[in-house]
Amino acid sequence: MGVNLQPGQPLAIASSPDHEALVRALTAEAWAAGADEVDVLYSDQHVRRELILHGSEEALTRTPAWLLRRAEELVERRSAVISTTGDAEPHLLADLDPGRVGRTRMPELTEFWWEAIDGGQVSWCVFGFPNEGWARTVFGEPDVERLWAAVATAVRLDEPDPVAAWREHVAKLRARGEELARCRFDALRFRGPGTDLTVGLNPGSLWPVEARTAWGVPFVPNIPTEEVFTTPDWRRAEGIVRATRPLALPGRSVIVSDLELRFEQGRIVEVSASSGEEVVRAQLANDDGAACLGEVALVDGTSAVGRTGLTFFNSLFDENATCHIAYGRAYAEAVEGAVGMSPEGQRRLGVNQSTVHTDVMVGGPEVEVDGLPGAGAAVPILREDVWVLEALATG
Amino acid sequence: MGVNLQPGQPLAIASSPDHEALVRALTAEAWAAGADEVDVLYSDQHVRRELILHGSEEALTRTPAWLLRRAEELVERRSAVISTTGDAEPHLLADLDPGRVGRTRMPELTEFWWEAIDGGQVSWCVFGFPNEGWARTVFGEPDVERLWAAVATAVRLDEPDPVAAWREHVAKLRARGEELARCRFDALRFRGPGTDLTVGLNPGSLWPVEARTAWGVPFVPNIPTEEVFTTPDWRRAEGIVRATRPLALPGRSVIVSDLELRFEQGRIVEVSASSGEEVVRAQLANDDGAACLGEVALVDGTSAVGRTGLTFFNSLFDENATCHIAYGRAYAEAVEGAVGMSPEGQRRLGVNQSTVHTDVMVGGPEVEVDGLPGAGAAVPILREDVWVLEALATG
Repeated sequence: MGVNLQPGQPLAIASSPDHEALVRALTAEAWAAGADEVDVLYSDQHVRRELILHGSEEALTRTPAWLLRRAEELVERRSAVISTTGDAEPHLLADLDPGRVGRTRMPELTEFWWEAIDGGQVSWCVFGFPNEGWARTVFGEPDVERLWAAVATAVRLDEPDPVAAWREHVAKLRARGEELARCRFDALRFRGPGTDLTVGLNPGSLWPVEARTAWGVPFVPNIPTEEVFTTPDWRRAEGIVRATRPLALPGRSVIVSDLELRFEQGRIVEVSASSGEEVVRAQLANDDGAACLGEVALVDGTSAVGRTGLTFFNSLFDENATCHIAYGRAYAEAVEGAVGMSPEGQRRLGVNQSTVHTDVMVGGPEVEVDGLPGAGAAVPILREDVWVLEALATG
Repeated sequence: MGVNLQPGQPLAIASSPDHEALVRALTAEAWAAGADEVDVLYSDQHVRRELILHGSEEALTRTPAWLLRRAEELVERRSAVISTTGDAEPHLLADLDPGRVGRTRMPELTEFWWEAIDGGQVSWCVFGFPNEGWARTVFGEPDVERLWAAVATAVRLDEPDPVAAWREHVAKLRARGEELARCRFDALRFRGPGTDLTVGLNPGSLWPVEARTAWGVPFVPNIPTEEVFTTPDWRRAEGIVRATRPLALPGRSVIVSDLELRFEQGRIVEVSASSGEEVVRAQLANDDGAACLGEVALVDGTSAVGRTGLTFFNSLFDENATCHIAYGRAYAEAVEGAVGMSPEGQRRLGVNQSTVHTDVMVGGPEVEVDGLPGAGAAVPILREDVWVLEALATG
């Protein structure tokens, strides 16, 4: 499962020095699984903090040529790529200028990876590594053992045969995705406290679950994953939505609480939050597509992540606890015929383009989700966190 | 002093995750000093261990293209480059196949850096970061505070004005180097217990102390430095030498004890050691120049490192405690007219070429060092660790 490393394939690991114990274990396992090479790149959030504090505006968005060269080399060599998450210091950037925090990114590198991922040019996987700082954020105390137990539940390591459990789980998600694809809804509607949002879909919206490299190797990009997702039409979101969980901005060590967004003709036109609002505003201003939707994903109450009852303050986990939308870049693979198109062509088709991609959790027991056909009555998909679409479709 | 970072200059830091506290402090200081960029690359010795354990023979000597591209970019941008030492786990590779340990290296990258350094294309500096593992190696217990005190003495941080102390110290070394250059010795001779070695010099041998970039910025490549050094003629070493201190092979986490070498016509023809012998043999077999000398350096008993009375099990420190020779690659800058020559031209001139460079400590109170003129009597340089050349030359 996961990155599904093949014998003879190179593996690259992108991680934090805070995760070195995991990195070392992964490296040993990868060689044992027949890796041709294991290349580790550590990124230090403290170094990023100093950049945000002191760098010129130009430096904030600089992609070093060698880093792009490294990405190209990984793609040329059909590598597997693992990224680890689990922020040991999730408030590290909280005292910095939020505009600079939101602007700091490497657009060329992000763009390169999005295209490589859309084209299936690498197998990749993201997962989390429990550590003291992350545990303190979740529990208020550095109880790493408790976080390990929660993560083990969330990623099905507590099953007697985790790999078999994953196979079964992926098959269940695949069936949901296929059902949604058959329904060919024109839009999805979310209704709940503070939320009434309609998200227009593309005529060719797909609901892929398992990813596959261009050379045919299946992999699971997120561990955990509990979602079925698609690429909405970036021009057709309308209404308001209230985030149902706090949002830890990936790579930014900033937590956004009580986020509310209002959409008009696809675009976010109002933002409010009790913390992190300015960082979100800076992100939305980064480029033209940042304020439009790139993803909508459905998750029900059977989610192994959701069943832990925890907020992980980590998007990888929290987005798999409940339904979510993402502003910014869309996955071309989730729209028929979009892979391989030019960015402008994808945009015309309805596939959003941006150097931002931020997931916002919007689901939960109080939020109803319906599928809206082009004509006719709304079709319930989720009620009180229960997946009801299958029963209706097959009943 | 040290790397002498200039406003607007990019800084690259090569370090270990074990040194992250130092890296973070350096990053902040560099921005404060006006760096244009701070680029940190962490290398994890555990990842290297797994490579040596499991990688193919070809993988052991592979230079990733991106790493070479990074080095090129640093040179193109006239960067400053800092490397940190202080091995937290100096025995980490001790149980591995010594042949594979000795063969593992990146020849293309090493070659690139040697040429960049010879050409003054970067300013660079290496220094040490005290940590528990290193302290345990030196004192038998993880007394980091005591190691900090020793390092502070060794690098003159215990002086009231360390920068002024360094300026004075470098001026003293420069005077020694100039005196040695005036003497134009044909060879140096080391005599002591187990040692009678004659090292032939080049007619154009220089004794540089301070380095200087091609664009004229002075820097001190090693903190500490206590040596005056030159590039010997790789064809003209004869005799035997016994190492006077154990040798921690840089980047290899292997300690070589009781090393003895015998030279014939410049080449090491016999090797023995009570530990690490096989790793040294593997290094010497790496290429044609590995078994010939690339450096000879003189250090007296006033060395701030030597006065700590400690063996640091770290070449940067131990080589600055006493006289040393290095097998492998030579510094072209220490021979008149060699910089800019082709590798083959340098070799003909007497400047050794190799992808190896390993320092071996050979000095101490019991070792006499003489300068041998082309004709006439030997001239004493060091007696009982006292520098006696100046007195003679000016007396």
